[in-house]
Amino acid sequence: MTRELPGSPLGLHRVIEPAGALPQAAWRLDPGPELWPDETRVRVDRLNLDAASFRQLTEAAGGDPDKLRAAVLGIVAERGKMQNPVTGSGGMLTGVVDEAGPAAPLGLTAGDRVATLVSLSLTPLVITDGLARWDGRSEQVPCAGHAILFGRSIAAVLPADLPARLALAVLDVCGAPALTSRVVAGAKRDGGRPPVVAILGAAGKSGSLSAVAARRAGAGLVIGVVPNQPEADILKVTGLVDEVVIADARDPAALAEAVRAAGGPAGVTVVCVDVPGCEGGAVLATAQGGTVIFFSMATSFSAAALGAEGVAADVTMLIGNGYVPGHADLALDLVRAEPGLRQIFDSRTAEG
Amino acid sequence: MTRELPGSPLGLHRVIEPAGALPQAAWRLDPGPELWPDETRVRVDRLNLDAASFRQLTEAAGGDPDKLRAAVLGIVAERGKMQNPVTGSGGMLTGVVDEAGPAAPLGLTAGDRVATLVSLSLTPLVITDGLARWDGRSEQVPCAGHAILFGRSIAAVLPADLPARLALAVLDVCGAPALTSRVVAGAKRDGGRPPVVAILGAAGKSGSLSAVAARRAGAGLVIGVVPNQPEADILKVTGLVDEVVIADARDPAALAEAVRAAGGPAGVTVVCVDVPGCEGGAVLATAQGGTVIFFSMATSFSAAALGAEGVAADVTMLIGNGYVPGHADLALDLVRAEPGLRQIFDSRTAEG
Repeated sequence: MTRELPGSPLGLHRVIEPAGALPQAAWRLDPGPELWPDETRVRVDRLNLDAASFRQLTEAAGGDPDKLRAAVLGIVAERGKMQNPVTGSGGMLTGVVDEAGPAAPLGLTAGDRVATLVSLSLTPLVITDGLARWDGRSEQVPCAGHAILFGRSIAAVLPADLPARLALAVLDVCGAPALTSRVVAGAKRDGGRPPVVAILGAAGKSGSLSAVAARRAGAGLVIGVVPNQPEADILKVTGLVDEVVIADARDPAALAEAVRAAGGPAGVTVVCVDVPGCEGGAVLATAQGGTVIFFSMATSFSAAALGAEGVAADVTMLIGNGYVPGHADLALDLVRAEPGLRQIFDSRTAEG
Repeated sequence: MTRELPGSPLGLHRVIEPAGALPQAAWRLDPGPELWPDETRVRVDRLNLDAASFRQLTEAAGGDPDKLRAAVLGIVAERGKMQNPVTGSGGMLTGVVDEAGPAAPLGLTAGDRVATLVSLSLTPLVITDGLARWDGRSEQVPCAGHAILFGRSIAAVLPADLPARLALAVLDVCGAPALTSRVVAGAKRDGGRPPVVAILGAAGKSGSLSAVAARRAGAGLVIGVVPNQPEADILKVTGLVDEVVIADARDPAALAEAVRAAGGPAGVTVVCVDVPGCEGGAVLATAQGGTVIFFSMATSFSAAALGAEGVAADVTMLIGNGYVPGHADLALDLVRAEPGLRQIFDSRTAEG
């Protein structure tokens, strides 16, 4: 069941409106099951709505499960993808590969259990079970239907040796440790000395993974910054960082002084805290010539640009790209190798 | 007239409220004329409000010059700095150095004519002439008063050989060519080959400077992207780029194809267009392993991060830091050396 014409690896051939848009920016996609030659079709078993989207939908539905189901079904029917029109965000999905087109480059075969690493906001999707098994209380949505992966989409085969919930949580943030690893290795190569690395939000999922990635990439000292004593206690027990520091990342002078006292300033600062207003502190905690990587979606572009200029900080500021080749395997391997990461992820995914 | 206690090079000692904030994020600064030892006082002769702030103030005042003057005077009296509370932005100022504290590190001496390269939004300021000479029709505001530079503030001595209006326009965007130069030189060093560089908005001020900087830093090919034929005509005459391409930077597939046809994809893409929605196109026009530098304040952090992930683009994305050591001299030297730049700047500053 594949078409003959070649498709665009970006999925442009699936965009119905507006013409010329990328699938993520498009209002409406064609989610039909027939494959272009480089596409892959997945039999969906679960959607994982992103937290911002789930919160907005729940509030709009007043917590009524029927209204919530109707809202998600309505979006997917109208747009051909699960992209919340208010938040613009999506989430990810899991399922089993149904069919791979003859020119599909993703290396997947029928029967593979996979998680998508591109957003639902660009993934063609059809739901066929009315979401009857979803109670509306969790962002994890049991679901029957199909989804389409493009030639340049990304999906990871779920590992057999890790619980699915853990693997999903790791894959959700796997870009952070991969980019941190690359930047730390580059700083060591260029500077000749193992860099000091500061992780803001080190007791969180992306922060703890990034801390371990930094250490393995050759950091000389890893400073984990957390906002309070309970998170400090959790992080200390794991042994994932060399120094644990309690500081408010939104207070620039206090943060910079805390990092300095722990062995800074940092050659590489990694921002993994999802609250606004951390740009100035991250810049100030970083040495001249150093690098700040912003993974927080709460980052303000202009606050970072003007903030660095305002203090004459010659720092390289990176927008945290969620894609780095090999990112899924790297993150899963870190979790397998470091019991401390398992502790942090278990404590943070136990409730859901 | 200096105090005895050491100040903070960041100006934290001038912050009145809220405590702990950096001067840019603060609501209110102490603009008193007495210097801390590392500060420098400037006798102001002109404010240059930034375009976004001037537009907002003009609209709020209904175009009435008296109301406009009152609004600016009110902000400066209340906040101790000219930071528009709606836009958050400021601008820059020119004046003559009045006094440098005994420990001032900026290398300025009394009598120097300077322009500040840090934003008015963090510069302590007192206005003493009621802005009587300002007609309210231009963002250039004749003004008497004083301003304070901190130890880590940045100011440039205005060159004697260039018209003040030209020098100011160049200094306003001088971070762009400096960072472009560094990134292009680094790409050449790492890759061994002179990189292809695409400049989006190449007929503008920061774009044209960045194009010349890229060429001088060793670019193999400089592609200038402009939105329409008139800008293409201007750019072609100057000879500043190798290829001139007309494309809408907000149309990702069209932009990527236009850059490819001109010799791309780019190893380095520089975004100098001040319209929203150019993130996806910039990413798609860039080769795997390449770098995008975002100078546009219209850049959306999340659109860049998710856009790159969505197309599995392994590109390094930089937030354009307005400060790079030596940026002012580099930009002024480019204008002196390239008649084509002078043409572009003259055409764009003639009206003001």
